Amino acid sequence: MTDYDRFLSRGANAMQESPIRKMGALSLRVPDLISFAPGFPASDMFAWEEFRDIAQRVLDGADASVLQYGPTRGYGPLVDALPQILAERGIRATPDEVIVTTGSQQALDLCARVFVDPGDTVLVELPTYSGALTAFRNVQARMVGVEQTADGIDLDDLDRTLVRERGAGRRVAFLYVVPNFQNPTGVLIARDTRAALLEWAARRDVLIVEDDPYGALHFDDAASAAETVPIKGGDRDGRVVYLSTFSKTVAPGFRVAWIAAPAPIAAKLEVAKQAADLCTGGLDQRIVYEVWKRGVIAARLPALREFYQRKRLVMEQALRRELGDLVSWPAPKGGFFLWAALPESIDTDALLTRAVAHAVVYVAGSAFYVDGRRSHRLRLSFSAASPERIDLGIQRLAGALREELSATTSSAEVSAAR
Amino acid sequence: MTDYDRFLSRGANAMQESPIRKMGALSLRVPDLISFAPGFPASDMFAWEEFRDIAQRVLDGADASVLQYGPTRGYGPLVDALPQILAERGIRATPDEVIVTTGSQQALDLCARVFVDPGDTVLVELPTYSGALTAFRNVQARMVGVEQTADGIDLDDLDRTLVRERGAGRRVAFLYVVPNFQNPTGVLIARDTRAALLEWAARRDVLIVEDDPYGALHFDDAASAAETVPIKGGDRDGRVVYLSTFSKTVAPGFRVAWIAAPAPIAAKLEVAKQAADLCTGGLDQRIVYEVWKRGVIAARLPALREFYQRKRLVMEQALRRELGDLVSWPAPKGGFFLWAALPESIDTDALLTRAVAHAVVYVAGSAFYVDGRRSHRLRLSFSAASPERIDLGIQRLAGALREELSATTSSAEVSAAR
Repeated sequence: MTDYDRFLSRGANAMQESPIRKMGALSLRVPDLISFAPGFPASDMFAWEEFRDIAQRVLDGADASVLQYGPTRGYGPLVDALPQILAERGIRATPDEVIVTTGSQQALDLCARVFVDPGDTVLVELPTYSGALTAFRNVQARMVGVEQTADGIDLDDLDRTLVRERGAGRRVAFLYVVPNFQNPTGVLIARDTRAALLEWAARRDVLIVEDDPYGALHFDDAASAAETVPIKGGDRDGRVVYLSTFSKTVAPGFRVAWIAAPAPIAAKLEVAKQAADLCTGGLDQRIVYEVWKRGVIAARLPALREFYQRKRLVMEQALRRELGDLVSWPAPKGGFFLWAALPESIDTDALLTRAVAHAVVYVAGSAFYVDGRRSHRLRLSFSAASPERIDLGIQRLAGALREELSATTSSAEVSAAR
Repeated sequence: MTDYDRFLSRGANAMQESPIRKMGALSLRVPDLISFAPGFPASDMFAWEEFRDIAQRVLDGADASVLQYGPTRGYGPLVDALPQILAERGIRATPDEVIVTTGSQQALDLCARVFVDPGDTVLVELPTYSGALTAFRNVQARMVGVEQTADGIDLDDLDRTLVRERGAGRRVAFLYVVPNFQNPTGVLIARDTRAALLEWAARRDVLIVEDDPYGALHFDDAASAAETVPIKGGDRDGRVVYLSTFSKTVAPGFRVAWIAAPAPIAAKLEVAKQAADLCTGGLDQRIVYEVWKRGVIAARLPALREFYQRKRLVMEQALRRELGDLVSWPAPKGGFFLWAALPESIDTDALLTRAVAHAVVYVAGSAFYVDGRRSHRLRLSFSAASPERIDLGIQRLAGALREELSATTSSAEVSAAR
């Protein structure tokens, strides 16, 4: 028996490998590869000592429920703490409006399953986070892109797109938006655009799924905390489903994130999670909770912001030094990513082969577009590599780009000479 | 905005709360409740000391990848160890034929998504594990039940059902089967039935999803290890997708399970998992791996078997003492469950209200049947409660049953007298 395709669902046949995960697999095979691909937080900033101490106490056996099956909604004290965490971001929520998820990826997946039927439209930014696209694609959503401006999502294009989709008889399940340091562009949606977006959603009766993994990591030289108040903060009629995570501020290995949503939606997400994985890991949830309760997250945030801001600067300087006018980017105001534009003749998918040969990788821009376009852009993550590795990686990238440019130029010359 | 139903997918509207999880929520509200509902392993048997020691070492910061995003396929050394763990059960597999999942519930969910389109038929045993039914229902499978005999699934009924489904033009996605200490019946599928099942699957070209959480926990007074060799052990043409877990032998709080499947199917399951939660928790996987590597699981298994066998005996004795001829059950040959039949006049869904009033709960038989039948049976888990609590709980259950019997008898008398 060799042909397994007959056993696969249509959904499975439509599934596509994550471009970011593909880069991860690659990085295990190429020696000394420098990867600017994944949004890895810097592990040298993890609170190892606190984790060890907490694990020791939590595993002392006094509380047997630690390692037992736990409530699907989440570890009680953590569920009770989330409203306080949300309040610090300007969001009011009660414990029955929150649910813990096994990382934000599960939150995206649960939203996809609870809101989307095959063929339904999901509106997304052009470009947007490829992990979300993977989750939406797996429920066979029709993903339709909306243009962005320097201030975030283009409200005119958004409304035109909605009207066109509904005019064609399609159900629009929700708008997916990443307002803080958008992935991949690093763009921050302006405050008045956020307000206008809420007003639009109410007028057009649209649900918004707001993904905010990076909100706490704004760069003081470019954005204030006030500018990062989530759209959910202004949500008066329960129209926003808000996603956030401890992966970027504590550690992603713990797989603890959460959703804040109107209580009836949170209840439905809980039922969906029962079937997806019963509950999120008990030890993980307790470590994250204790880290928060001890004030470790709050105490470390200023240093984390400064740390990533410095990394961003290192990468920006390296890009200017190595590539000069060949590259440009919108200044990242927070988060982990720099969205770089190369000369328009460059296809960053094609360039990738050459980059791998130079032992450096990134995520090609095409991965973030739902309209299938090729792109001369690429996402560079400055979060995980050391300053020295960032310098070296950008040197390698510059080498690959120069080779590609001279190859495409000479092949153009050859064509012209024929 | 109060009506959220318009935002929900058809899939979400079809989702149903897990009956076992519902009992879990209940147990938090009723003081001193004795719960025979969930399949909880006994936490006093967890290897707390080893867990603490391993956590301490794993979190020493030397290996930063512990708390970073990890490979979707699973923690490398654990993936490499699984073929050895499988070999001890008589299953041959290579690392590219296994994938780690976030508990067996995720394994069931991934199988549902990769193999089932809405409306496809999934064949299941009557009765079968309700958590699997939840996962299959969430992808809008048509679940069709097959009768069981004392030797497990009824092969004649199975073939008739398959032919009928295919005859009606339906795609049969797979047969879901729990061969070892079936959940809820505790039945062990006989060895020749296993062989016949494989032969049937090949002849009819059917995929088998074999769920084996309890295989290692056979009772020496009733079954031998040889009798528990999974169906997958005889699978020559890659027709069986095998699920197992560390939840029952290490601890469920770690959320680490796995699937063994033909390489192309494992690869597709990996793509599905990328979108579901990116990766299983890094700390959890390492603790489980180290526990295995140190030989802790192998060393503890004989004691675990004896422990659960003793618990079964305590419950059986209590049932005989308290209920005598009012109750019968097939002798559990392993696992956590006893499948009790009460007098046929009893509806165990209706009895539950009275049981809760007596501060005892179980899972009503109806939860395990896909044909919507009411049932006079109930699933009693003997795994987690102490012997004293088992005695007390069965006393309470007997009290509830006697009340119910006298109420139904007197109401029958009232009806007859009218």
